[in-house]
Amino acid sequence: MKNTFGSSVAVTLFGESHGAAVGAVLDGMAPGVPVDETFIARQLELRRPFGTISTARREPDAFEIVSGVFEGRTTGTPLCILLRNTDTDSAAYRRDQARPGHADYTARVKYHGFADYRGGGHFSGRVTAALVAAGAIALTALRGRGVAIGTHIARCGSVADRAFEHLDADIAALADKRFAVLDDARGEAMRSAIEAAAAARDSVGGVLETAVTGLPAGVGEPWFDTLEGQLAHILFSIPAVKGVEFGDGFALAELRGSESNDALRMENGAVRTVSNHNGGINGGISNGMPLVLRCAVKPTPSIHAPQESVDLATGEGVQLELTGRHDPAIVHRARVVVDSAVALALCDALALRFGTDHLA
Amino acid sequence: MKNTFGSSVAVTLFGESHGAAVGAVLDGMAPGVPVDETFIARQLELRRPFGTISTARREPDAFEIVSGVFEGRTTGTPLCILLRNTDTDSAAYRRDQARPGHADYTARVKYHGFADYRGGGHFSGRVTAALVAAGAIALTALRGRGVAIGTHIARCGSVADRAFEHLDADIAALADKRFAVLDDARGEAMRSAIEAAAAARDSVGGVLETAVTGLPAGVGEPWFDTLEGQLAHILFSIPAVKGVEFGDGFALAELRGSESNDALRMENGAVRTVSNHNGGINGGISNGMPLVLRCAVKPTPSIHAPQESVDLATGEGVQLELTGRHDPAIVHRARVVVDSAVALALCDALALRFGTDHLA
Amino acid sequence: MKNTFGSSVAVTLFGESHGAAVGAVLDGMAPGVPVDETFIARQLELRRPFGTISTARREPDAFEIVSGVFEGRTTGTPLCILLRNTDTDSAAYRRDQARPGHADYTARVKYHGFADYRGGGHFSGRVTAALVAAGAIALTALRGRGVAIGTHIARCGSVADRAFEHLDADIAALADKRFAVLDDARGEAMRSAIEAAAAARDSVGGVLETAVTGLPAGVGEPWFDTLEGQLAHILFSIPAVKGVEFGDGFALAELRGSESNDALRMENGAVRTVSNHNGGINGGISNGMPLVLRCAVKPTPSIHAPQESVDLATGEGVQLELTGRHDPAIVHRARVVVDSAVALALCDALALRFGTDHLA
Amino acid sequence: MKNTFGSSVAVTLFGESHGAAVGAVLDGMAPGVPVDETFIARQLELRRPFGTISTARREPDAFEIVSGVFEGRTTGTPLCILLRNTDTDSAAYRRDQARPGHADYTARVKYHGFADYRGGGHFSGRVTAALVAAGAIALTALRGRGVAIGTHIARCGSVADRAFEHLDADIAALADKRFAVLDDARGEAMRSAIEAAAAARDSVGGVLETAVTGLPAGVGEPWFDTLEGQLAHILFSIPAVKGVEFGDGFALAELRGSESNDALRMENGAVRTVSNHNGGINGGISNGMPLVLRCAVKPTPSIHAPQESVDLATGEGVQLELTGRHDPAIVHRARVVVDSAVALALCDALALRFGTDHLA
Repeated sequence: MKNTFGSSVAVTLFGESHGAAVGAVLDGMAPGVPVDETFIARQLELRRPFGTISTARREPDAFEIVSGVFEGRTTGTPLCILLRNTDTDSAAYRRDQARPGHADYTARVKYHGFADYRGGGHFSGRVTAALVAAGAIALTALRGRGVAIGTHIARCGSVADRAFEHLDADIAALADKRFAVLDDARGEAMRSAIEAAAAARDSVGGVLETAVTGLPAGVGEPWFDTLEGQLAHILFSIPAVKGVEFGDGFALAELRGSESNDALRMENGAVRTVSNHNGGINGGISNGMPLVLRCAVKPTPSIHAPQESVDLATGEGVQLELTGRHDPAIVHRARVVVDSAVALALCDALALRFGTDHLA
Repeated sequence: MKNTFGSSVAVTLFGESHGAAVGAVLDGMAPGVPVDETFIARQLELRRPFGTISTARREPDAFEIVSGVFEGRTTGTPLCILLRNTDTDSAAYRRDQARPGHADYTARVKYHGFADYRGGGHFSGRVTAALVAAGAIALTALRGRGVAIGTHIARCGSVADRAFEHLDADIAALADKRFAVLDDARGEAMRSAIEAAAAARDSVGGVLETAVTGLPAGVGEPWFDTLEGQLAHILFSIPAVKGVEFGDGFALAELRGSESNDALRMENGAVRTVSNHNGGINGGISNGMPLVLRCAVKPTPSIHAPQESVDLATGEGVQLELTGRHDPAIVHRARVVVDSAVALALCDALALRFGTDHLA
Repeated sequence: MKNTFGSSVAVTLFGESHGAAVGAVLDGMAPGVPVDETFIARQLELRRPFGTISTARREPDAFEIVSGVFEGRTTGTPLCILLRNTDTDSAAYRRDQARPGHADYTARVKYHGFADYRGGGHFSGRVTAALVAAGAIALTALRGRGVAIGTHIARCGSVADRAFEHLDADIAALADKRFAVLDDARGEAMRSAIEAAAAARDSVGGVLETAVTGLPAGVGEPWFDTLEGQLAHILFSIPAVKGVEFGDGFALAELRGSESNDALRMENGAVRTVSNHNGGINGGISNGMPLVLRCAVKPTPSIHAPQESVDLATGEGVQLELTGRHDPAIVHRARVVVDSAVALALCDALALRFGTDHLA
Repeated sequence: MKNTFGSSVAVTLFGESHGAAVGAVLDGMAPGVPVDETFIARQLELRRPFGTISTARREPDAFEIVSGVFEGRTTGTPLCILLRNTDTDSAAYRRDQARPGHADYTARVKYHGFADYRGGGHFSGRVTAALVAAGAIALTALRGRGVAIGTHIARCGSVADRAFEHLDADIAALADKRFAVLDDARGEAMRSAIEAAAAARDSVGGVLETAVTGLPAGVGEPWFDTLEGQLAHILFSIPAVKGVEFGDGFALAELRGSESNDALRMENGAVRTVSNHNGGINGGISNGMPLVLRCAVKPTPSIHAPQESVDLATGEGVQLELTGRHDPAIVHRARVVVDSAVALALCDALALRFGTDHLA
């Protein structure tokens, strides 16, 4: 399935940046989950550009739930949510202009030139607004089962946030932050780095770190539908994500087994690990500890500095100078997309494990 | 699908470490692909333990192709390949012993104690022998379309190999190496590191780096079935893999857009990128450049040093001292597993894109 | 996947009878297929109630293509089509009223009372409007490859239509008929039967017969994704379909092998069968002959005669007398739904077989 | 997925008639289900040819469980079961001989001549032995949840069995019958009809009718994964099945709504239907009544009478006279295949609905 993810709880995305709308169909969600439009709007707000560190495109992100909700709760049948595009300005986009770092060239090859090129079309980050809207319902359902998810900007450019400490408090603190860092002073330094890049007509990337608490042990399906594999599958759909790691991830490669193994211990009648180098997953199955993962987010490819490229119609070399409205960083906007993607994948894994009523 | 990966070309794995056999069903492979048993045996050989840096378990890895091959070629119908277990010694495994870093505890929770615990059962790295056998046929099919795959040990413990330089030559050079490094002197240093860890009753991890040449542009299915997402999905099934990154991966997070964007240029009538920070993939779709990815491999969790754990029957704390036969490192054995997994995922993506005959 | 059908070309349905809208997402369709809104409207027209033999609900079936079309052609990315509900009258529906023959009771059990009960909610035939809209694009794509599909009312109540004779001419003649019979005189008799049932506050069923020409040999995936299995899977989604048969179907059970086997013969350089008792499919794979199938359509369960039922809130027996607007027959409206479902399943099978560009 | 069926409980088939073996992988079955090898052997026995009404090929149907069973119970990880071929005689099969009514020609087109043609290869009814073996475990799991399945030969040639009356008693009586009829006198008449056909070098078909008791209400996933659609999907994989109907099926087409609707009534605190014309399914979801379905089985295409065909190598017309060992009827052997297919599809639907432990 191309634009559909999940087997028991499935999400389908559609829409283009400069078309009529973007949207999502959420199928298989348990019936009876409260649908809080204020919460959906809040989540969309977290994804919206703001201040001087974002694009000037300002979509109100008004959404319409077209189906699947009745009397304020999910019905259990497909929920379609629609977000109209209103603030589109296609003037800056040219059909044959292949922007480096973007999908322009690859989409051209795959779709033989029929895809909507304006604003990146279906490849635009705009489509993540629909993912966030669907994810808001998944997050609500998980919260009802005691599962909480939080993501912070662990690194932006060369500035690092502090590490997670008290997970539940940290996750709660992140919930409403538009620039999601655990240490606000470091957040200020990150914003300065973004502004500096913008001033240089350039952009910066970063790392997002996510923690999930309350996930029961025993979820995940080896060999192939491991929890890591499922999460990575959906996370790599997020534009700009180029790496995903769990627990200590790449740092594990430099440890010894005696350092990376998590010793087991009984605590209050439950098996717990003393450390969490494996990020809450062993053998592809959750172990009841907090799930921890990180996503590498590359710098926004849309920069205003001149770049070498090719005119796809003529095949001739061109010097591009993008003039559209662009983000000098998207890491702060992407974090709610990561939360949403993680929530959707976990709803699927839980429903597959415990049945379609589990999240009700 | 739990133990099945792929939608057009699909692989299903089965078997346990100390059961009768492990095996794979490869379904959807194009008809007419030559099945070279010598090549399959060679690939299995690359996965086998050897020398002083591996477990003493020495499975001959004899295999039987049970179906799907006729007169030396794939028939197009499911190919089942079986590898009998012969050198099993279950004495060292105890049912209630949860080894830190392994799936013992999570499998116990998920399967309620019914899973075969001996040697890790279905979670054993032994099952990767079946993946390698199926992958050998995928690699042959890809080679027939001009696609080559090579993986080297980019880092083992604290020793780094040299970077890829001349890709096709490097891939060719790696093909038959049992300890797959580009610089054999650094390989010697890595082996010393492994032996040092073994002497300390400990283990080491590493990073595997893979390059794929010859992949056409236009393969991959956004939003969700991106090439990155599909590859990561299968790669995280490999025991010990805890991170996957594409192109410059996590390093991208620290670059600026002007550094991470790959400029486009015409070369011999084709669009090429001047650099390859994105690892051959833009917007989830191949761009015709070499695909580059890296997997973080954690240290083997089976170590002989004493470890704190829990007896799962009594719930009491125990001090474990593993006495079985274990690998002080698996990074060198895992590389052919990575090659195989990448090949299987690419066969699926190509068959979905170009039809079921494409790989014939 | 619950409300999604297909693996390479996939359709997802959403919406409720009395909610905001019904709609479909068509994913994986080849890029470049012309999207003719007049043709979509014509297809929707064929599904709309008309005259005295249908419900008084008259939806204009205005549709909006929200995504996936650019400059009049499919883009290759997901196409979402939306049909707003306008002529809804929920007064006649009561939450706890379980109408015999409908999904009211089963939906209540499955969704624990959270589903939208008005007008049958997501189980309403209204949702087939979205299937028809998506199917129109599939039909256009198939026509571009020389594949034609036609369905006639083979039987309505006790009146039978004549059999297919000259397939291409018959299919062409059916295309624009609102009451699709090959012999219009028999069609008149069918309408009389429907009107007689309506006068008796009752309803009638029928049989729809479908022929497909131009399908190449070699399409279908045994063992499980046989052409018959895939088609039946989607056809049984159509409300009221309770039987599906291919070729001579159930009549084959009473033949001898010498009668039911289709002898092979060369004609103009191609292998053809002399008869077509197997309906164009052998071993689950198309054989190049016309594909022939039939669907049994049960009488509309909504009748105005009094019926015994249960109040689902109190558990007490009730005598129901439905007062809503209902069809005394749906077989004539269902035929375009069958055409659409067949088209969608065949697009998927062809794209899987020949690649995602095949239908371009 | 081609040779895999199911999303939570999945079965994969492999093997050829004259190859080394046929087999199945059953994945996702709950852990802890007793695996009774005697019962598996009994089920295989029901599929085996016997007496004068079957082929002379006599496979012992010895099976080996290669994985997924530990200490007599399912582990929850993939169960592979293997049945070696021993009594193969390929002399009668010629590569270019396309037998009418078989998959020889379609397989030739699809697999470009690479498929194993001997005995029909992967398309042989022999592969159903593996389906029966896997189905035996599914039947055991269902029995543990109070679900019973029974199939009788409702019609063979022109002889009809009596209808189901007391379902549980009828299902129990059928369990061990090698020629599964409810009325043994009619069974004798059927056998005579088969023998008469054999004497005429011909074959007969029939209708199999299946009843399922104990299935809870609320199982099935509209729109597309209806219970009817899922069951039909797997049933059409069985060679020779050319029609599937539920409840009164095609007969419904000739009823009026007042006759075909099943009135609802409370009985012992549960909602029941007074009649069961809909076969236990409304809106694609089980309603708690017995599930009833019928399969049309065409006459065995292998007959000894001369038939017109084509030599696929030369394209010239040939007169075929098959000399292999063939069944003059398979309806009696197919019934246990139908039981098995129904069981596998229901296990999948139940596990999806109630979670992966439900069948434990």
